[in-house]
Amino acid sequence: MKFELPNFSNILIGKSLKTEELKSEKFNVLWGLPIMSSDAISSVAYAGEEILLILIPVMGIMSYRYMLYASLCIVFLLFMLTFSYRQTIDAYPGGGGSYIVAKDNLGTTAGLVAGASLTIDYILTVAVSASAGTAAITSAVPHLLEHKVGITLLLILVLVIGNLKGIRESSKVFGIPTYLFIISILFMIIWGIIRVHFLGYIPKLAYKIPKVSGSITLFLFLRAFAAGCTALTGIEAVSNGVPNFKEPSQKHAKIVLTLLSFIVLLMFGGISYLATIYHAVPNSEVTVVAQISGQIFNGNIIFYLIQIATAIILIMAGNTSFAGLPLLLAIMAKDGYAPRQFTKRGKRLGYSNGIITLGILSSMLVVIFKGDTHYLLALYAVGVFISFTLSQWGMFRRWTKSKKQGWRHKAFINGLGAVLTFTTTIIIGITRFKHGAWVVFICIPLIVYVMGKIKIHYSEVAKQLKLSAEDLQMPKEINFKRQKRYVIVPIDTLNKSFLKALNYARTISDNIIIFHVSVDNEATEKLLKKWHEYDVDIPIVVKKSPYRNIVGPLVKFIESEEYAAGSKDTVTVVLPQFVVTKWWGNILHNQTAVFIKTMLLRRRNIAIITIPYIIDED
Amino acid sequence: MKFELPNFSNILIGKSLKTEELKSEKFNVLWGLPIMSSDAISSVAYAGEEILLILIPVMGIMSYRYMLYASLCIVFLLFMLTFSYRQTIDAYPGGGGSYIVAKDNLGTTAGLVAGASLTIDYILTVAVSASAGTAAITSAVPHLLEHKVGITLLLILVLVIGNLKGIRESSKVFGIPTYLFIISILFMIIWGIIRVHFLGYIPKLAYKIPKVSGSITLFLFLRAFAAGCTALTGIEAVSNGVPNFKEPSQKHAKIVLTLLSFIVLLMFGGISYLATIYHAVPNSEVTVVAQISGQIFNGNIIFYLIQIATAIILIMAGNTSFAGLPLLLAIMAKDGYAPRQFTKRGKRLGYSNGIITLGILSSMLVVIFKGDTHYLLALYAVGVFISFTLSQWGMFRRWTKSKKQGWRHKAFINGLGAVLTFTTTIIIGITRFKHGAWVVFICIPLIVYVMGKIKIHYSEVAKQLKLSAEDLQMPKEINFKRQKRYVIVPIDTLNKSFLKALNYARTISDNIIIFHVSVDNEATEKLLKKWHEYDVDIPIVVKKSPYRNIVGPLVKFIESEEYAAGSKDTVTVVLPQFVVTKWWGNILHNQTAVFIKTMLLRRRNIAIITIPYIIDED
Repeated sequence: MKFELPNFSNILIGKSLKTEELKSEKFNVLWGLPIMSSDAISSVAYAGEEILLILIPVMGIMSYRYMLYASLCIVFLLFMLTFSYRQTIDAYPGGGGSYIVAKDNLGTTAGLVAGASLTIDYILTVAVSASAGTAAITSAVPHLLEHKVGITLLLILVLVIGNLKGIRESSKVFGIPTYLFIISILFMIIWGIIRVHFLGYIPKLAYKIPKVSGSITLFLFLRAFAAGCTALTGIEAVSNGVPNFKEPSQKHAKIVLTLLSFIVLLMFGGISYLATIYHAVPNSEVTVVAQISGQIFNGNIIFYLIQIATAIILIMAGNTSFAGLPLLLAIMAKDGYAPRQFTKRGKRLGYSNGIITLGILSSMLVVIFKGDTHYLLALYAVGVFISFTLSQWGMFRRWTKSKKQGWRHKAFINGLGAVLTFTTTIIIGITRFKHGAWVVFICIPLIVYVMGKIKIHYSEVAKQLKLSAEDLQMPKEINFKRQKRYVIVPIDTLNKSFLKALNYARTISDNIIIFHVSVDNEATEKLLKKWHEYDVDIPIVVKKSPYRNIVGPLVKFIESEEYAAGSKDTVTVVLPQFVVTKWWGNILHNQTAVFIKTMLLRRRNIAIITIPYIIDED
Repeated sequence: MKFELPNFSNILIGKSLKTEELKSEKFNVLWGLPIMSSDAISSVAYAGEEILLILIPVMGIMSYRYMLYASLCIVFLLFMLTFSYRQTIDAYPGGGGSYIVAKDNLGTTAGLVAGASLTIDYILTVAVSASAGTAAITSAVPHLLEHKVGITLLLILVLVIGNLKGIRESSKVFGIPTYLFIISILFMIIWGIIRVHFLGYIPKLAYKIPKVSGSITLFLFLRAFAAGCTALTGIEAVSNGVPNFKEPSQKHAKIVLTLLSFIVLLMFGGISYLATIYHAVPNSEVTVVAQISGQIFNGNIIFYLIQIATAIILIMAGNTSFAGLPLLLAIMAKDGYAPRQFTKRGKRLGYSNGIITLGILSSMLVVIFKGDTHYLLALYAVGVFISFTLSQWGMFRRWTKSKKQGWRHKAFINGLGAVLTFTTTIIIGITRFKHGAWVVFICIPLIVYVMGKIKIHYSEVAKQLKLSAEDLQMPKEINFKRQKRYVIVPIDTLNKSFLKALNYARTISDNIIIFHVSVDNEATEKLLKKWHEYDVDIPIVVKKSPYRNIVGPLVKFIESEEYAAGSKDTVTVVLPQFVVTKWWGNILHNQTAVFIKTMLLRRRNIAIITIPYIIDED
């Protein structure tokens, strides 16, 4: 709607676009890779750090070895997921998000659980990515550390405005930072290894490793593994976005997914290895990646380049949620599970309500958690893996139900995927339960419940509004006796605005009553005197209101015996409303008419006529 | 209005009161003194401290002597003001606030300047008193120091709720703490003097006095004097509240005013003297009064009693503003200089809008200045003295104009008062200009400007609504040709809600057009098919909206050549609106009807009929 936005929105958001202009650019492999996978690739910027954060306080220097083991497990999981999702791409050329796959194959409830998990994840992705992007900036420029919440909120605001503008227009540009990030991190890994192993550099211990020597336990290892699983978030974006690829889109999507896995393998493995030989120690001021690159490049220009690339790719990862969640909400809203406003496109064709909602909720998370990535990450991976599991399990059921050629092989792969992701969900749920995962376990059922309620509401509304065959056979001619119409015109003071309303009322009925609520005897007497001077043959009813309530007496009168309208008669209330031309004018007037309307609208047999009276002030 | 408040307001605020229950308790001298003068008396809790705060950093130990001199000047000013205001009480038995006195005798602009100064002062009084009350508490319980802003805001909230409840019911209770404060401070003064002069106690130097020995300059002395003038705030409350006294009310008010002066003299002088002999040094943690009483009573129970009494009287001083500002705003609103909502009494008969406004604005000041009394006090006294000056000068003009018996004597007293207060205003304005007084010098003209604009607005509205003799001679019978009425019923989907609206429309006109804005070709075709099945002989107009704007095409159509309504014909738009019974239901529906109404109401010849359709969900 063009009118509800003030004019400066044109400057900020851009001019409105026609519905016909809706088209999205299609990508080949070269551009599809960086654009569809920034979320997945960017998570290597924090996943290794999360593992060390669990291990180091317990095991000290021994942590690095187990970090490598945990990383290996995660990389194994990554390849299993890649195989599974390649099958989803084949089965859902229109895009197979968890919500759709689960709803299709496992039923509504499973679909809603997947939808709820995804919703939480998208919101967390924005909060996490923006916070981690800020961490990359503040690691390079420590002065800014005290403003980290402010910077994070600013980044989110930029994303909101950018998406309201509809940034798809120039989306190829967004591929470049991903490549910059990939190349610079790979370069760091290669140079970091060469420096130590071939040039004989001995890394300094910049941060103290605690002198502890706890031994590894299964639980500790699983905790570390669970923490590292954040590296796998964003994988499903590719299978979700199949229609965004050029034809043959499924083939392109599968190539991208496979490439993505190898890139994550190289980067995640490489960073884990570097952390080991450079003895990076997670702390709240400098990220692990910054510690490593700071040593490798001695804080020269390449160090800053890596920090910039990291910050940008993290922000872009947040941006993928701004494409994902509004679309998911629109799909769920079309099914009746989310407020219908999410289906409306804004002036620039983006789903603006979803974009704004996402911006607000993620900002709230940032404020609540004071922009600290670690706390947010504890909530993060559970939801992702719940939706992975449902999606894989849905695919498994799909094959076992269809029994088409080769279904056993396919069912095995997705079934294995389901078992692995389910196991991981359990591991994450248990090991991180008290660190925040419990919040997610409360939120998901809550969201599912609300979605169910919304569906019931819309169904009920649709049922009650639906025309029966009988309704459609309604009398083509209505015999209306004009004399029978009940019309009430409330009066406060006798002025032009009231007279305009009264005159309108007189054109539709001969059965008018003027109604006055008296809160001040003096004012009422003055009014009555004036009214009698005016001398029109219309009765005036005065009701005292000792509690200075204006609406109550009117409603009471309409429903009373005294007023003879039967319960089947429509009572028409004509309200004069003066309209001031200056925006601040409304502050200066009691909005009594608005309250009267709100109250009266709750009654069945009422019609409210508003007669504007415009006050010119120019 | 009873209906817009949720039910828990009954618990918080209490049940509604009838207008007839409006009566205020009348006081004799015994209760009038503590109740009307808590603001004035409480300011001795911080005035002496403000003087020392100016002098000590420059003069060190020599400050105490000049503090006494400054205090003497202030006490002299106090007695002059007492004489002057006794005359105001005589002249204004209905209560002579600066706004009324200045408006009466010096004209509207002077009245508005006084009104603006008073408004600022009342807001500052709340902020200052609540902050100083918190300081009294935190001086006794230093743990609470880190929560001082929170405590201050809580105190303001208590005042707001208390005043919304209408605390006048039990107002005599509020006299007791004032007496407690007066007695305990006087006891402290007497015992403090006895201990040093008769019992040979040698006060310890608890806080270091800076080793500086700057000499007194006129400017420094005037700055100290200006700072101490905060002791005189609240004096005019008595002359303002003459009607609150028992008959003979003027006589009682004058006695109270005189007594008040002597009490302030004793307390202010006493505290200044004690500060001298006990070497109190202002700092940001312990107030001067607390330093003195802490030494005198060695931190025993009486020390805590004094702190409690101080805190309570300061809070009550804040409370006087909650009686004063809402009343002032109501008076100014009746004159048309403030939004009319300020004249409405809430459910408990208090001017609730004024009370809430005061609470919000003073809370904002507390947050901005982080609950620091000293910064707030720098803004404080200017406004008070501007209103003193205008009030005194107004009284002077009153006598010189009336020239009734004895006018010379009276004019001399008020004229002298005016000269002294004006001089003080200048002194305060200059010496405290850069410390904050400049804010007041910007705000007062701004507020006066806004008040002027409001008056113009109300006058214009009244002028345009006023009925001329001609209007009152309007046709007693209107010949209305029913066929000529232009009615438009917008349609989105053909459902029961729409049909209800259409059927209403058909009862008032034969000239109906159904109007559809198409944003989705498919949906439009479906609608048209259904409409033709329904087969009623009413034309349907379809307009495409490429920018998905619903209201624009409708407005354009109404104004177009295509639609034949002349500019003098009223176009009636009938809007179906469905009403959901659950509160959250509205979130789930586009409020398109509301936007349409808002846009259409800005047009002159329009009538909007809203037909509610209620969706039952129980």
